[in-house]
Amino acid sequence: MTPQRPGGVWAPAITPFRHDLAPDPERFARHARWLLANGCSGLAAFGTNSEANSLSAEERMMLLEFLVAHGVSPDRLMPGTGCCALTDSVRLTAHAVGLGCAGVLMLPPFYYKGVSDEGLFRSFSEVIERVGDARLRVYLYHIPPVAQIAISIPLIERLLKRYPQTVAGLKDSSGDWNNTKAVLDAFAGAGFDVFAGSEVFLLANMRHGGVGCISATANVNPAAIHRVFENWGGPDADRMQEQITATRAVVYKYPMIPALKAIVARGFADEAWATVRPPLVELTAGQRESLAAELDSHGFALVA
Amino acid sequence: MTPQRPGGVWAPAITPFRHDLAPDPERFARHARWLLANGCSGLAAFGTNSEANSLSAEERMMLLEFLVAHGVSPDRLMPGTGCCALTDSVRLTAHAVGLGCAGVLMLPPFYYKGVSDEGLFRSFSEVIERVGDARLRVYLYHIPPVAQIAISIPLIERLLKRYPQTVAGLKDSSGDWNNTKAVLDAFAGAGFDVFAGSEVFLLANMRHGGVGCISATANVNPAAIHRVFENWGGPDADRMQEQITATRAVVYKYPMIPALKAIVARGFADEAWATVRPPLVELTAGQRESLAAELDSHGFALVA
Repeated sequence: MTPQRPGGVWAPAITPFRHDLAPDPERFARHARWLLANGCSGLAAFGTNSEANSLSAEERMMLLEFLVAHGVSPDRLMPGTGCCALTDSVRLTAHAVGLGCAGVLMLPPFYYKGVSDEGLFRSFSEVIERVGDARLRVYLYHIPPVAQIAISIPLIERLLKRYPQTVAGLKDSSGDWNNTKAVLDAFAGAGFDVFAGSEVFLLANMRHGGVGCISATANVNPAAIHRVFENWGGPDADRMQEQITATRAVVYKYPMIPALKAIVARGFADEAWATVRPPLVELTAGQRESLAAELDSHGFALVA
Repeated sequence: MTPQRPGGVWAPAITPFRHDLAPDPERFARHARWLLANGCSGLAAFGTNSEANSLSAEERMMLLEFLVAHGVSPDRLMPGTGCCALTDSVRLTAHAVGLGCAGVLMLPPFYYKGVSDEGLFRSFSEVIERVGDARLRVYLYHIPPVAQIAISIPLIERLLKRYPQTVAGLKDSSGDWNNTKAVLDAFAGAGFDVFAGSEVFLLANMRHGGVGCISATANVNPAAIHRVFENWGGPDADRMQEQITATRAVVYKYPMIPALKAIVARGFADEAWATVRPPLVELTAGQRESLAAELDSHGFALVA
């Protein structure tokens, strides 16, 4: 039996911290189970919105093991494993594969700027070869506004040609639909699975051969986003898409990660969620009030 | 007795790799001792030009311990310890202080873009407080062309006010003399030690109250750069500065790290030095030939 490939709505699950800024595995697992029970098909743990790069490799592995040991099936997990250091990326990727994760979401190394596609090809290639496991499924993570390093179409083509079984898809967080469409046009027909990096593009992505979205806001609005995914071929799809786009636009006015955590803290009446790790800064009381008021006026509620 | 504060010419020592891309501690220590014997006052190991962010925390600690165990006095070491993850920065900084290093060169966390000075203040502050060692001396690392995250003058001011004994200086790799001058004007009088990030600005930096330079090219041209430092108040300073600026300009035409490694490989007749870790790519044979020819025509020789 061929295992089902990831698709649908995946959340880059936010990472809770204790007062001393240590990651909080219990709260993390609780949120993970809530997301899976409320519309998420899976979790892209340790994404940008998970503050993954603010965590050490050891902290990430501890949290991932805790999820799997506490009710989250590894086939619902696509952890972020791409680091600046080749050896860290290999270690985290091998660890995720060893746990049976559905795939990994891999940032390119992002410290050096202006690196060549040849250098990026070697980076991904070294990780794939060193992990050396037929179960590995790599989803490339294209997020130039943050990483500043792009996953170009020629790079995807070269990786797919060399590792057709392993290179499984891409998350496009460029915010540029033209780029997503170009990737879909080039590779979706060959079974390369494209996730939109925001639910704003979910319907468009599905209509052009994509498989879903991996979106920050799925942390707080999973049910409504999932309804668009489920009904994308139906008559109400455009109306439902408008609604989730409008909710996203409210959250997007604020710094994304602190805003998501403030929404979760309020929705679950659990103030600990508001904590972020430096260099991020939590929302001010005023920002939290205006965000809450605006979401209320949109009829948004955390628990569907 | 007050220990002498770092000054002079410091090299962000390049990191040698074996064919399997593992770091090579023996070659690293050999190069470190060569640099110290040929004009460098110290080593800013694990800087940008050391491919530090391509190394795991464990690899950095292993290499640092090896240096100290093999003839490099820790008071000649200012390792880079600033990572994206707070916990990694704390771990590496505590390790360097524990070994007795003269200071640490600290990048800001560089994954998230557009972070606030408040968030950066908290980042540095958490590291300083968690390491909690009176011996710690932090040199802030300002390199916006690569890190994309700047160390602003208000941030320096706030850190200095809060940690006057610990925040000891800054390396300015902005490439913008106006910024270096503004930092010198604001803080040099108060004993804040500014290193130019390139020997191109060494003389100007010394004339305005700076203490030296930490420069990539010190890996290959330490003696000549040291002569400018030693003679900066003398009548030949400008002529000597012109010469090292001209050598730098030749190297600067090529990708810096692969070029430095190619020069060292050639100068020491040790081909292993040419290896870089992805995402960097070594120079082509043609690039190596033209770089060598141009350096020869400038009368440049690796061993002074």
